[in-house]
Amino acid sequence: MSDVLRKLAEVLEERKQADPDSSYVAKLYSKGLDSILKKIGEEATETVMAAKDGDADQIIYETADLWFHSMVLLAHQGISPDDVLNELDRRFGLSGLEEKASRTEK
Amino acid sequence: MSDVLRKLAEVLEERKQADPDSSYVAKLYSKGLDSILKKIGEEATETVMAAKDGDADQIIYETADLWFHSMVLLAHQGISPDDVLNELDRRFGLSGLEEKASRTEK
Amino acid sequence: MSDVLRKLAEVLEERKQADPDSSYVAKLYSKGLDSILKKIGEEATETVMAAKDGDADQIIYETADLWFHSMVLLAHQGISPDDVLNELDRRFGLSGLEEKASRTEK
Amino acid sequence: MSDVLRKLAEVLEERKQADPDSSYVAKLYSKGLDSILKKIGEEATETVMAAKDGDADQIIYETADLWFHSMVLLAHQGISPDDVLNELDRRFGLSGLEEKASRTEK
Repeated sequence: MSDVLRKLAEVLEERKQADPDSSYVAKLYSKGLDSILKKIGEEATETVMAAKDGDADQIIYETADLWFHSMVLLAHQGISPDDVLNELDRRFGLSGLEEKASRTEK
Repeated sequence: MSDVLRKLAEVLEERKQADPDSSYVAKLYSKGLDSILKKIGEEATETVMAAKDGDADQIIYETADLWFHSMVLLAHQGISPDDVLNELDRRFGLSGLEEKASRTEK
Repeated sequence: MSDVLRKLAEVLEERKQADPDSSYVAKLYSKGLDSILKKIGEEATETVMAAKDGDADQIIYETADLWFHSMVLLAHQGISPDDVLNELDRRFGLSGLEEKASRTEK
Repeated sequence: MSDVLRKLAEVLEERKQADPDSSYVAKLYSKGLDSILKKIGEEATETVMAAKDGDADQIIYETADLWFHSMVLLAHQGISPDDVLNELDRRFGLSGLEEKASRTEK
């Protein structure tokens, strides 16, 4: 599962050297932060709309768009997706303990 | 990298059986789809705000929130995060070919 | 102040008869509800970004965009902006009473 | 129609002097810009969700929420809603001319 995000992060890093006319991501970088953030707002809205339609394929498609543009933001800011995954790990590790605790209580 | 999303998906699956009062996720499930979608809208906005502040730690934190609630949506809809990662793989696989093509052209 | 929203509502109503190629609004109608909703998500994000930049002109511009696309949604759904203003009136009327009450208490 | 926005702007101005514990708006001001912006993101998402549900009452309610929090942002930034309405007037004035032009062409 992980390899996809790692490879995507590598591709996004490579695209920083690319001609803005040669790829969608290179163009986004050249337009700057605000263009990337607009896409995050857009894709979040489209994910919500797909979910309201109950269309699984569309939910997958729009969530991929949302994660993709989040990854572009991370790359643009010099942040590794590992930092986000570590934050999730830290949290659900804690949640796991809470879950265990709440089971013990019963 | 992948293990985090896989384990998180497992935790989110387990929480479907949990008492709504025992965990944040179980409560979100019990409130239903709209509550999950509101959180996606909220977290996308907060990610945008963190990026405008140029605060890396906050970007990581809010992106984790955004991905987390996307994962809750996927779990709620019975969709595996692998479906999203496969969609990303399909796309950046294609992009890789495009990248290669555009390099060859020069 | 009011005349602008009333006249805008009239223009938006007229555009329902217009050729999709003749105006931006007619094109939005022809693309359907989802296109209008995407714009609301986009313009909300852009309003947030303008506010984070502290750029008053841009806040005015983006808020105008946000209200405009809200008005397009209302028109598309056959709802008058008066319904929204009445709802606001109802609320801040109540709030006015609360405000008065809280002053009396002191 | 206009009087509602004008009176609302007055109420929002008055609340700047209010105790944060005495009103919702005074509390929002005291929490600062980010709290107001989060609400704009939230309410835009909820407007989109109400529209997907095709629930007219809910669309009215959520649009009122969205306009209300936009008005709070304007007040917080010292901007009059007249500035936004003037911007809309300027635009749909122009659009009116375009509409006329496009009719003449036919």
